[in-house]
Amino acid sequence: MSFILDPRIAAGSHPLAQLDLCEARLQDDARFPWIVLVPRRQGAVEITDLGQEAQMQLWTETLAAGAAVRAVGEALSRPVLKLNHGQLGNVVAQLHVHVVGRRRDDPAWPGAVWGFGTAEPYLPPGLSVARKTALNALSPFGRGS
Amino acid sequence: MSFILDPRIAAGSHPLAQLDLCEARLQDDARFPWIVLVPRRQGAVEITDLGQEAQMQLWTETLAAGAAVRAVGEALSRPVLKLNHGQLGNVVAQLHVHVVGRRRDDPAWPGAVWGFGTAEPYLPPGLSVARKTALNALSPFGRGS
Repeated sequence: MSFILDPRIAAGSHPLAQLDLCEARLQDDARFPWIVLVPRRQGAVEITDLGQEAQMQLWTETLAAGAAVRAVGEALSRPVLKLNHGQLGNVVAQLHVHVVGRRRDDPAWPGAVWGFGTAEPYLPPGLSVARKTALNALSPFGRGS
Repeated sequence: MSFILDPRIAAGSHPLAQLDLCEARLQDDARFPWIVLVPRRQGAVEITDLGQEAQMQLWTETLAAGAAVRAVGEALSRPVLKLNHGQLGNVVAQLHVHVVGRRRDDPAWPGAVWGFGTAEPYLPPGLSVARKTALNALSPFGRGS
């Protein structure tokens, strides 16, 4: 079964890279450096829907996304204090993992970002910096998309 | 450096089991079947503060906690529809992972549980069922505490 990205994830994020397992996307919310990883496994909802090898790969790619999120924070002069990881899937069932960089001065701190306020889409200059930086950090793990 | 559980985690949860890596705790919130895993590594804040082997063990114990959360939901006649995983640490820095069982009729659905409303402490009968059930599900991974 070929993989189709959920249109709600597609609409709220920008493509970054095709990693070995996941499609990596930049969440279109300039309030937080935020990468969403979507394993290209049609029908997967829970992490346990992945085979054991794919689960390990998801873990590897989650770590890579964390490094990329930190790099984006640096590039935008807003260094990340703490990574937040979430795997919810209550709204969009398609399995996806959030990796979010948090700062004491971000608008949601210290609360969770999910459901907090309204996303602020990137403006072109910031988007370009964020995408290039994230792509560069992810490049050992896949190819740009 | 010996491990000391953060007193805020201790105050909001009940002990379940000492797994190989983590202290497993039942979040004292009867609204959701919810286990918190705390790696016994003093000073760890980010998952990457753990060595690679401990990271894999955290993953194994997270899966076990997911099965235990599902078992608790069954035992309380509120079967879990979706697992939610979160690793935040914005309020309590000590590394900990949340594994939460969600249902369409839970009060926070489909939003995230973190920061949602006020915890509803377990009453003794439900607490006893939840603890016994979780402990039984976790027993292959450690000993009761």
